[in-house]
Amino acid sequence: MRPSQRSPRQLRPVRLTRHYTRHAEGSVLVEFGDTKVICTASVEETVPGFLKGKGQGWVTAEYGMLPRSTGSRMRREAASGKQSGRTQEIQRLIGRSLRAVVDLVKLGERQIVIDCDVIQADGGTRTASITGAYVALADAVNGLIQAGKLAENPLFDHVAAVSVGIVEGEPVLDLDYPEDSACDTDMNVVMTGSGRFVEVQGTAEGVPFSRAEMDALLGLAEQGIAELVELQKVALAG
Amino acid sequence: MRPSQRSPRQLRPVRLTRHYTRHAEGSVLVEFGDTKVICTASVEETVPGFLKGKGQGWVTAEYGMLPRSTGSRMRREAASGKQSGRTQEIQRLIGRSLRAVVDLVKLGERQIVIDCDVIQADGGTRTASITGAYVALADAVNGLIQAGKLAENPLFDHVAAVSVGIVEGEPVLDLDYPEDSACDTDMNVVMTGSGRFVEVQGTAEGVPFSRAEMDALLGLAEQGIAELVELQKVALAG
Amino acid sequence: MRPSQRSPRQLRPVRLTRHYTRHAEGSVLVEFGDTKVICTASVEETVPGFLKGKGQGWVTAEYGMLPRSTGSRMRREAASGKQSGRTQEIQRLIGRSLRAVVDLVKLGERQIVIDCDVIQADGGTRTASITGAYVALADAVNGLIQAGKLAENPLFDHVAAVSVGIVEGEPVLDLDYPEDSACDTDMNVVMTGSGRFVEVQGTAEGVPFSRAEMDALLGLAEQGIAELVELQKVALAG
Amino acid sequence: MRPSQRSPRQLRPVRLTRHYTRHAEGSVLVEFGDTKVICTASVEETVPGFLKGKGQGWVTAEYGMLPRSTGSRMRREAASGKQSGRTQEIQRLIGRSLRAVVDLVKLGERQIVIDCDVIQADGGTRTASITGAYVALADAVNGLIQAGKLAENPLFDHVAAVSVGIVEGEPVLDLDYPEDSACDTDMNVVMTGSGRFVEVQGTAEGVPFSRAEMDALLGLAEQGIAELVELQKVALAG
Amino acid sequence: MRPSQRSPRQLRPVRLTRHYTRHAEGSVLVEFGDTKVICTASVEETVPGFLKGKGQGWVTAEYGMLPRSTGSRMRREAASGKQSGRTQEIQRLIGRSLRAVVDLVKLGERQIVIDCDVIQADGGTRTASITGAYVALADAVNGLIQAGKLAENPLFDHVAAVSVGIVEGEPVLDLDYPEDSACDTDMNVVMTGSGRFVEVQGTAEGVPFSRAEMDALLGLAEQGIAELVELQKVALAG
Amino acid sequence: MRPSQRSPRQLRPVRLTRHYTRHAEGSVLVEFGDTKVICTASVEETVPGFLKGKGQGWVTAEYGMLPRSTGSRMRREAASGKQSGRTQEIQRLIGRSLRAVVDLVKLGERQIVIDCDVIQADGGTRTASITGAYVALADAVNGLIQAGKLAENPLFDHVAAVSVGIVEGEPVLDLDYPEDSACDTDMNVVMTGSGRFVEVQGTAEGVPFSRAEMDALLGLAEQGIAELVELQKVALAG
Repeated sequence: MRPSQRSPRQLRPVRLTRHYTRHAEGSVLVEFGDTKVICTASVEETVPGFLKGKGQGWVTAEYGMLPRSTGSRMRREAASGKQSGRTQEIQRLIGRSLRAVVDLVKLGERQIVIDCDVIQADGGTRTASITGAYVALADAVNGLIQAGKLAENPLFDHVAAVSVGIVEGEPVLDLDYPEDSACDTDMNVVMTGSGRFVEVQGTAEGVPFSRAEMDALLGLAEQGIAELVELQKVALAG
Repeated sequence: MRPSQRSPRQLRPVRLTRHYTRHAEGSVLVEFGDTKVICTASVEETVPGFLKGKGQGWVTAEYGMLPRSTGSRMRREAASGKQSGRTQEIQRLIGRSLRAVVDLVKLGERQIVIDCDVIQADGGTRTASITGAYVALADAVNGLIQAGKLAENPLFDHVAAVSVGIVEGEPVLDLDYPEDSACDTDMNVVMTGSGRFVEVQGTAEGVPFSRAEMDALLGLAEQGIAELVELQKVALAG
Repeated sequence: MRPSQRSPRQLRPVRLTRHYTRHAEGSVLVEFGDTKVICTASVEETVPGFLKGKGQGWVTAEYGMLPRSTGSRMRREAASGKQSGRTQEIQRLIGRSLRAVVDLVKLGERQIVIDCDVIQADGGTRTASITGAYVALADAVNGLIQAGKLAENPLFDHVAAVSVGIVEGEPVLDLDYPEDSACDTDMNVVMTGSGRFVEVQGTAEGVPFSRAEMDALLGLAEQGIAELVELQKVALAG
Repeated sequence: MRPSQRSPRQLRPVRLTRHYTRHAEGSVLVEFGDTKVICTASVEETVPGFLKGKGQGWVTAEYGMLPRSTGSRMRREAASGKQSGRTQEIQRLIGRSLRAVVDLVKLGERQIVIDCDVIQADGGTRTASITGAYVALADAVNGLIQAGKLAENPLFDHVAAVSVGIVEGEPVLDLDYPEDSACDTDMNVVMTGSGRFVEVQGTAEGVPFSRAEMDALLGLAEQGIAELVELQKVALAG
Repeated sequence: MRPSQRSPRQLRPVRLTRHYTRHAEGSVLVEFGDTKVICTASVEETVPGFLKGKGQGWVTAEYGMLPRSTGSRMRREAASGKQSGRTQEIQRLIGRSLRAVVDLVKLGERQIVIDCDVIQADGGTRTASITGAYVALADAVNGLIQAGKLAENPLFDHVAAVSVGIVEGEPVLDLDYPEDSACDTDMNVVMTGSGRFVEVQGTAEGVPFSRAEMDALLGLAEQGIAELVELQKVALAG
Repeated sequence: MRPSQRSPRQLRPVRLTRHYTRHAEGSVLVEFGDTKVICTASVEETVPGFLKGKGQGWVTAEYGMLPRSTGSRMRREAASGKQSGRTQEIQRLIGRSLRAVVDLVKLGERQIVIDCDVIQADGGTRTASITGAYVALADAVNGLIQAGKLAENPLFDHVAAVSVGIVEGEPVLDLDYPEDSACDTDMNVVMTGSGRFVEVQGTAEGVPFSRAEMDALLGLAEQGIAELVELQKVALAG
């Protein structure tokens, strides 16, 4: 049994609350246990400079943590004057993950900006962000379709993400913060609804991992992401 | 009647939800109607350099808005690399307001950092922030007292804030965003529980205001803040 | 009697020296006692991006202090790589105050940039800046009229500013630095020539202030600003 | 056959030139075909603040590209005033990879800073950097041992890296720039001399990849890294 | 005859006004014709980090221009967030020039910071700055001597500077702005009171210059600086 | 005899290796003894904003040092977020020096960007950079001529640079780092192939220098630069 009383193959309770704030075209509160992230999707009828006149759209993401979303207060990035390397890694990952399931030509010359802001952190903020951001993106896209601005749906699949890791020698799914701090290997996996890989990022924090461990982790991730995609479908049908 | 169906002397529905997130020593969600701000208080057992060895503590504040807390997405300050002049003005105001009711010597050589993060904006974010931050600060201070780290309560009064303004020629209390955009004069007032002024910041956005209008606005603010202090007391007793 | 041998209702000696430097369209040295500020007005035949094609002009301000304008040397903001929150507050205040008496449509699609640079500080630099900047602005506008570039005068009133405060329990006018450091309440008031309020910014540095004190301070400010407006008129007629 | 006339399982010609520049404690020019990176190791007898007094050392890395190491000139990061997200990702990866084979306690309270500067780029700059940096690090550590400053060797294994990817449907080893631009999946793998994984970073640039493709890529990487470790051993024995 | 009605060997009218502002230990307004610079010297009883505990002091300089000191308004460096390359070159030059005549050991472990702020520019701001800064520095040093903080005078010579150049084929002394804009060669020369060179910075703006022209320019500079040193002596005796 | 066994009038061994890297239009490794700099010339078919539509081109330069090109590691400028004053001085000098021999109108509306990156430093990096950059520039220009993009050669002369200085009382040519650290006077001289001066920058590091010393240094520089220009011609003919 894990400290959170979960089995190794068990996700934390996951909640996806749509229409969480009122201004954004898509707004979702995603909770993976005690990890809580507000994901908004903002539609802008313009594209970045490098895409001007190319007949396609863009999806990009930004990520932030409230200073006291964590156990000890972190310095506010706006005050320190720059985003950390970690922040940039995560927001680039979220953007790439979402673009993997969007037909940017069908989106037309517009941009959807995803903001993922962590209001409470307990491990897995980047995987929760991707999973919630997909739902916010879907709401924004559906709004464009309903407003008659899109002829076809540019979303051709789901995308979700989960962390897996080796804790005290055992592969486990969806690490919370105490497990994340203690694990030997931490892997973030992003997959589509059709079961293909978009991103695999595995890091040995302690002892490097064997090929057999790698295989076990990938299997856990496949199972967890299939469950998350089902939860996305339920939320969007709600 | 105002657009929000309120009388000129009527506050929006105000809610103060304590223990809103789990890590901070004080954590309050404050709502003034559709304006929603997370206020956290973080206790740090150190003081800024300019106070080292002076036998007193410090209370300071930082303020931010989620990029899509507003009707159109604002640029993320962490990405643009600096805090706007408006952000700095507001966080300096919050800090000064709170320090007006704290005996910094009784606080001892520690710092309490207040973070006010707007997750949804509809006018009055700075006054909601001050009003909610006081409750988060009180929770953090009470925690220190209960932990035996403080002999005496360094808080000697309440502090709360409200906006008042002249909209279409009439003085009104607690402006929402549509009123704020249309008003001729906008005034933010910060007062103590004992009815004295900590800050008065009045700005003529359109036609400059007369002394008689000034007097009417101050009267409205006195009434509104007295109500807000009562709500703080109820919340803290809850 | 105050440390400067002034009565409570007495301004410091005020001097407004026009044509102080030779390049700017308006250039004024303003002195409030030992506080000395160079105010220049620069006419630019362009407007900021957000006003392009809107058929109106703009007035904006920047503020700075020479590093050794003060008793101990301050770090040069150009060297530290950013303007302090205080600097930004002040320059936003100067800009708003001046715009309150300018018809921006009559100004046409051009911008007037006011620079207020403190060469010697002894309290009240922001109120001296506003008072002197108005004269520099008027000179620049008159130059445009004489050059046939403006059909009508866009300035429809005067604007000036003064500080008032409560020092050792007594309301006094136009605080110098020793009084500013010792006061309980410091209030900056900006008013038009017709006696209406543009800005009121009162801050309790020590004990919060009562409504009666507030009223007394506003009365002092009304008197002081009326005197300053007369001095502006004399200077502009000179 | 690939554009470079290599078989799918074939590395580019790899060269490791030690003592490439004269000042650094370790200095290696690593070449993976036309990709050329100068890797230096600098020993500093101090540790970063967060490790002061903890009885251990640190290994960290920085990465840069000369502006014209690439086909079209990139903006110099020193001139633009910040390192890109990509640069930060890569230098964090290099540092983590090297620390995976260093006993930081045995290193003692000192820091070794690795600088990887790309003078000519043709794909795979991060994997070449890691592979060359290990040799520079080994030279610096050997210097410390020879100088009597280290009792035991803190390096307990080799570490090297290679890219693998799916190009036109086929898994290939060690992508050059034309392949990297055209591939559907790009994966960077870091492994130890004993055949365990330190980092796996796979990204679907086009079509997401299947589990079978994932397995094939990992197999290719295992083979390639085993060859690179042999080349490191030959270089260090030279 | 030159546009300013001067002969080729003639300086502009030079004025050195001591005690120009009241706070600094040395404060001089230097005027070379219409070029006006405020030079202050601030004594700090500390040294920069790299000199701590080395038994010597330091002299350094900063330079700035008011935005409208020039014919068209320049962007304020504090607002743009960095000092230009030109500003840095000039302030480094001023610092090196002054240190050439200071015995830093005799100065003791303290720093004198020189601020040169141009309030009106008409060519030659850096040479006027050096010439005025020397006088401000001398006043600050004399203050230290009179206060009994220095046993011996650390200033062992004078230092002054002038520009020379080739305008329409003729070598001339002390260029004003119209000459500076039109010249083929511009040279700034810094010399001691004893007639030795501290800095020579010659730049061909148009046609490169011959050795004979170089010799003529150096001769002009020698004469001009001898006159400037005399003016410094008169000012300091005043 | 000097520490490097050279006579006072003797250059270090100088090598100019063309086509050093493969992407740039001009790419030269220049070596002055142990000082090694990669100089690349990049042709861009655009001009900076201030030259748009003016019918002429531009040549500019950037300079950098690898962090461990020096005896002790320097902080990476991209990491510290800005270029030092020294870096900016040097790159401005390189750009001015090259432009002195280019007919910018003949170059047409395009820009050539020179990058000088020091991979190993032993004194004289700026003079080596200018000398090598000229050859890279010539290669880039010749490429444009061969491609039929230029009707006439915009280069009308050579330009090269060398340092001279007074070491232990004696004037010497081409100082290496030990001499540079010990010298009383350091002078960098830039001259054309026809023997005229482009830049003279002399600085007294210790004792100020006399007119006679100045004359001796200029003579040494004239001789050294004549030799460097011959080496450029040989390299370009190779």
